[in-house]
Amino acid sequence: MRKIITVSREFGSGGREIGKRLSECLGLNYYDSEIVKALSEETKLDENYLNDKLENNFNYMTSIAHSFSRLPMEYDPAMLLAKQHNIIKNIVKDNDCIIIGRGADAVLSALKPFKIFVYADMDAKIARCKERMADGENLTDKELEKKIKSIDKSRKSIHDLYSSYTWGDKSAYNLCLNTTGINVKNVVPAVAQIINDYFENLS
Amino acid sequence: MRKIITVSREFGSGGREIGKRLSECLGLNYYDSEIVKALSEETKLDENYLNDKLENNFNYMTSIAHSFSRLPMEYDPAMLLAKQHNIIKNIVKDNDCIIIGRGADAVLSALKPFKIFVYADMDAKIARCKERMADGENLTDKELEKKIKSIDKSRKSIHDLYSSYTWGDKSAYNLCLNTTGINVKNVVPAVAQIINDYFENLS
Repeated sequence: MRKIITVSREFGSGGREIGKRLSECLGLNYYDSEIVKALSEETKLDENYLNDKLENNFNYMTSIAHSFSRLPMEYDPAMLLAKQHNIIKNIVKDNDCIIIGRGADAVLSALKPFKIFVYADMDAKIARCKERMADGENLTDKELEKKIKSIDKSRKSIHDLYSSYTWGDKSAYNLCLNTTGINVKNVVPAVAQIINDYFENLS
Repeated sequence: MRKIITVSREFGSGGREIGKRLSECLGLNYYDSEIVKALSEETKLDENYLNDKLENNFNYMTSIAHSFSRLPMEYDPAMLLAKQHNIIKNIVKDNDCIIIGRGADAVLSALKPFKIFVYADMDAKIARCKERMADGENLTDKELEKKIKSIDKSRKSIHDLYSSYTWGDKSAYNLCLNTTGINVKNVVPAVAQIINDYFENLS
């Protein structure tokens, strides 16, 4: 029985931390930036660029591609997405694991992954972003809110391009967790229990 | 620190069972049909009638009320709802507890309850309804699907009459659990852990 977990998440909700801690708790491999690293090696495009454009800023990327109408096909945003999907499919071959974002929930649907969606109230997301803000990055609450909304809008757009359901529509996920007011570290063992029950029933 | 949990649920998803088991797991009082019982005592209207009309069949009730335009005000559906809300508010006075459905999530919002929404795929809900079907009640899958959709439509209508958010909109809930493919009994202790963490952080 395959054991694949996908973690979709609103920016700043702590989804990545939940995924990382779940991987430790369940003893599963964890894939996040590793996917972009592999895509960067394949395309020779800069990892930071890909990471930003394929996760956070796709709308912008599409408009760039539009203005560069002679962009070679291998740099077409849709082509880069297709390559990313292929990397995700290769990762899960004989490899039970946890994948963060990047539309893995939709790409791997046929394998019946346990799909988590992590979200939070805007105030909680802003507070979390501030705690983790890099030195020198001085964004006001208003600027952070704008950034969060813009990134989530992009994640939704990319996801919905090739998914049969809307990003964040709870009916498509096994568990939707609002991290507002909870300690992510404390609740991961409980989430792991629910996941284990799901896979036991599948087998 | 108050400890109030509300369980909203799609019909046939197992939300009531989750609520009941959570109350045992957390040692909290549990309110479900007790609310309608209290309303029945207050209004002298039949419990089954109220239970059906205020939970499952409000649209129909509204149309009945409409055709009986001289219905006394105390039987006006909206008045019955208001009385039900008042009963819910009285229940939680100095009483930490779990309340199933009946819009308690919206009515008690200011008390920061932990709000759960339980849902499932249609096939899973039909299967669950069939397991629990009363003797002599012989509904086909198609009829059950129609019944489930109709009841959920009514629950949504009633809820959205007086709530600032839509019934089932995940952003308003702390946890949304899809019971498809999981054993409700097994996951309740995990849900209880998440709830305990929430209330510990609130205090």
